[in-house]
Amino acid sequence: MADARLETVLTRLEANGAKHLEALKAFVAIPSVSTDPEHSSDVRRAVNWVADQLRTVPSIEVSVEETGGHPAVVGAWGNNPNRPTVLIYGHADVQPADPLEAWSTPPFELTERNGRWYARGISDDKASMLIPILVAQAYAEAGEEPPLNLRFLFEAEEEVGSPNLSTLVAQRRAALACDVVLSADGGMWRAERPCLTISARGLAGLEITVRGAKKDLHSGRHGGGVVNPLHVMAELIASLHDEGRVAVAGFYEGIVGPSQELLEATEALGFDDAAYEAAVGAVTFGEPGFGTLARQWYRPTLEVNGLWGGYQGPGSKTVIPSEAHAKITCRLVPGQDPATVAAKVIAHLERNLPPQASLEVRHGDHSAEAYGVAPDHPALTAAAEVLQEIFKTSVDVVGMGGSIPICSTFLEELGADTIFFSFSTADEDIHAPNEFYRPERFRAGLEAWARLWWRLGSLEAR
Amino acid sequence: MADARLETVLTRLEANGAKHLEALKAFVAIPSVSTDPEHSSDVRRAVNWVADQLRTVPSIEVSVEETGGHPAVVGAWGNNPNRPTVLIYGHADVQPADPLEAWSTPPFELTERNGRWYARGISDDKASMLIPILVAQAYAEAGEEPPLNLRFLFEAEEEVGSPNLSTLVAQRRAALACDVVLSADGGMWRAERPCLTISARGLAGLEITVRGAKKDLHSGRHGGGVVNPLHVMAELIASLHDEGRVAVAGFYEGIVGPSQELLEATEALGFDDAAYEAAVGAVTFGEPGFGTLARQWYRPTLEVNGLWGGYQGPGSKTVIPSEAHAKITCRLVPGQDPATVAAKVIAHLERNLPPQASLEVRHGDHSAEAYGVAPDHPALTAAAEVLQEIFKTSVDVVGMGGSIPICSTFLEELGADTIFFSFSTADEDIHAPNEFYRPERFRAGLEAWARLWWRLGSLEAR
Repeated sequence: MADARLETVLTRLEANGAKHLEALKAFVAIPSVSTDPEHSSDVRRAVNWVADQLRTVPSIEVSVEETGGHPAVVGAWGNNPNRPTVLIYGHADVQPADPLEAWSTPPFELTERNGRWYARGISDDKASMLIPILVAQAYAEAGEEPPLNLRFLFEAEEEVGSPNLSTLVAQRRAALACDVVLSADGGMWRAERPCLTISARGLAGLEITVRGAKKDLHSGRHGGGVVNPLHVMAELIASLHDEGRVAVAGFYEGIVGPSQELLEATEALGFDDAAYEAAVGAVTFGEPGFGTLARQWYRPTLEVNGLWGGYQGPGSKTVIPSEAHAKITCRLVPGQDPATVAAKVIAHLERNLPPQASLEVRHGDHSAEAYGVAPDHPALTAAAEVLQEIFKTSVDVVGMGGSIPICSTFLEELGADTIFFSFSTADEDIHAPNEFYRPERFRAGLEAWARLWWRLGSLEAR
Repeated sequence: MADARLETVLTRLEANGAKHLEALKAFVAIPSVSTDPEHSSDVRRAVNWVADQLRTVPSIEVSVEETGGHPAVVGAWGNNPNRPTVLIYGHADVQPADPLEAWSTPPFELTERNGRWYARGISDDKASMLIPILVAQAYAEAGEEPPLNLRFLFEAEEEVGSPNLSTLVAQRRAALACDVVLSADGGMWRAERPCLTISARGLAGLEITVRGAKKDLHSGRHGGGVVNPLHVMAELIASLHDEGRVAVAGFYEGIVGPSQELLEATEALGFDDAAYEAAVGAVTFGEPGFGTLARQWYRPTLEVNGLWGGYQGPGSKTVIPSEAHAKITCRLVPGQDPATVAAKVIAHLERNLPPQASLEVRHGDHSAEAYGVAPDHPALTAAAEVLQEIFKTSVDVVGMGGSIPICSTFLEELGADTIFFSFSTADEDIHAPNEFYRPERFRAGLEAWARLWWRLGSLEAR
C-alpha cells in the first residue's frame, strides 16, 4: 500500500520534467549575489521566488522572514506528534560571477551544453535546494501527504557566512524544532558513486591591510627611501607557510583526529591524484604526510583568497602604494576554535611585521566550527539505503573540505544533527566560472528525496 | 644694450600673468593619460594644443609628428650657424589620476588652494614644459629674437617610457641637431633652494604572472590540495629583498660610484630625515650603509608597483585563484645595464619558483640607462648662474631618483648632454593624488628661461 502511494508520487515527478526545468531556469536567472550590495534586490527576488514555489502547495504554511540582512523563507507542512519532524535546509544566494570573461555562456542563463546545465549557483545550491520543493509539489499533486512533519528553511546569506541565521533559528526555535536536518547544500564527492558526508571543515576569515607612507609615492623619487607595503605584505604572506605546512605557531594545536582508521578508509577510496591533477591543471601540493583527500577533508589550511595593492591597470605606474591588502580564510577541523585560530594568525602577523609598516586586521564576516556526525545516525543510515536503492551500489563515506556553518547552528539551537543530502557534485566548478550541474543527478535527486521522506516516516519521532 | 632688450622680454612676461594662467588651466584640463588607451584622443588633443601654442609665434616652424604611438611636436626658431643651438624637451602626457577618491578637487581642473595649484600632471610636466613656450611668446611679443637657435621637442609618451622617441629623434636628427638639450622635465629637489641635477637613475621593468591550477578553485573544496599562486607570488616577492638590500644575485655588480666625495657632498646637504618622515608619514628605510638621499639618488632599487590576484570586492569569496600578478620596476645607476638587470631578476624568480607553479614574465614597455652629466658642463654653469641671480643663493648639486630615459636617447642620437631646467619640485606629489605646483616657481621659471636663453646665446656654438 505504502509503496503504491510512493509510486504515484514518483510517477508525478517523472511527468513534471519540463515544468521542473522551467522552474530551475527561472531560479538561476535571478542573480542573487549575496556579497554584493548592488544585488540586494535580486537576492530578495530569489527569496520571494522560493516562497512562491512553496506556496503552490496549499498545505505548506510559508513566511518570508526579515533578518538584519537578506531575508529567509520558513515553511511548515504537517504537525503530527507521532511522526518524526525533518527540517530541510538550502540557500538561494550565489557567489559573484566574476571573472565574467571566463564564462563560455552568460552566467545567469541556464545553458545546456554537452549534457550539462551551466549557470552561476546552479550547483551551489539552486538546483539541489529546488529538488525538495519540487518533491513537495509532486506529493501534493499526487494527493499524498508526506509521512513525516516537514519544516523548510531557505536562507540567502550562505555565501556570506549566514551572519543572521543563528538569530533567526533561535527566534523561530519552536517553528523549526526537528529531529534531524536534511541539508540540500553540501554536494557529493564524485559523480561516479553516491556518497554521504560525515564532516565539514570550519572557517575563520581575516582581512588585513599593511600601511607604509600615508600617501602613494613616486617610486623613482622615493624608491630606496621608505618601506613598500607590497614588499611587507609579501613577506607576511610568505611567512604563513613553510613547505605546505601552516607556519603559524599553535595552528595545529588541539586538533582531534583524523583517526588512523578514517585515514585508511579515505586512502581506500582510491582517489586518483593523476586524474585530479589533469582536471584542475596543477600538481597536488600541501601539508606533508597526508594524502590529497585527507588534506582536503580532515586537515586545516590557510589560504589567501585575494591580494592586492598598487597599480593594476594597463601599462605601468611607477608608484610605491601606501597600502596593501589581503583576504585570508582558514579551513578548520574538529578541535580548532575559529576565534582562537584567528587570534594566532593575527599574533603571527604582528610578530612578523617590520617596524616601518603598520597592520590593520579586520575579522571576516563569518566563521564556523568544524562539524561531524555519528556514522550510525539513523537518518544517515536511511539516506544510505535510499542512495543504494537508486544507484545500485554501496555508498562511500566522505568528508567535506568546505564549510557549512549552519551545522553548528542547528546543533546548538535545535539540538539536531545535519545530514547532507545534496545532488550537486564536487567537480561542478562552484565559486568559479562555468559552474554546472548534471541533469541526471537532478532526476536522481527528485526520486531520492521522495523516497527518503517515505523511509524517514517509518522512524521513531524523538 | 643686451640687458635692456632682455628687460623688455621680462616686462612682457610679467604683464602676461593672467594669460599664462588661462593657458595652464586649458592645458591641465586635457586628461592626456598616455598609458590608458581610453585617453588616446585626449593625448592627441594635448599635443595639438601644444603645437597651436608654439604656432602663436610666427617665426617658429611647427610640425606634429606621427609615431607608432602618441604624436609629438617638433619646432624650430632660428638657424644662425654662429649661434649655439639648444633643444628644449618636455612632455604633454600625464600619469593616471587614480585613485580618484583620494583627490580633494577634480584632477583635471586647475584649483588654487593655500597658494598652490592642484591638478594631475601640473608638476609632471605640464606647467614646467609650458614655461619655455610662454617665454618664446614673450620674446616674440617684445619683438625680440632669442640670441640662439631654438629647437623644441614635446612628446606625449614620457609616462609610458617614450617607446617611440628614439626612432623619432633618429629620423629627425638634422632638424633636432643641437649643442645641448634643456629639459623642462626633471624637477628640483626642494622648494627652499635652487638646485641642478647631475644624474638620473635608469629603469628596468617587468610584469610577472604566477599560475597554479588552470581555473579558479573553491578554497574549501580544494584548499590543501593544490598550490595557491598568491602564496607563491608572495614568496617570490619576499625573496627579492633581504633587510632593505636587493637579494637578486649580481644585482649590484658593476656599479660605478657614488664616489666618497659625492656621498659626502650629499650628506652635507643636510637632509632632514625627520621632516621627510613627517611629510610622507613613514620612517625611512632601505639599503643599509647609505643615507636616505644617497639611497634615493645614487643607489639602485627594486620596487613592486602593483600586486594582485584573487577576489578584491566587498565581502569574501573563498577562492584559490589560478593566477597572481605583479608589476616590478628597478631603478638603476651608472654601470647597470637595464636588460642585464632584468635578466638577473628573471633568473632569480625562476630559481625560486616552486615546481607546482609556472611563471610568465613580460618585459616592461620601457627601460632606460642611468644618466650623468659632467659637473663642469658650460650649460650647467650658465644655468647655475641664472638660478643664483634669481634666487640670490648658491645652487645645490643633486641627483635624481627618477628616470629620464630621453637623456640616453639625446646622447646617442644627437651627441648632446641634457641639462635639467625644470621648476617643478620633488614634493609636489607627482604620480599621486593631489599633485600640485607652486605659482611662485612658475613665475621664477619664466624669468629663468628668459635669462638662460640670453646667457646661452653668449656661449660658443660647437
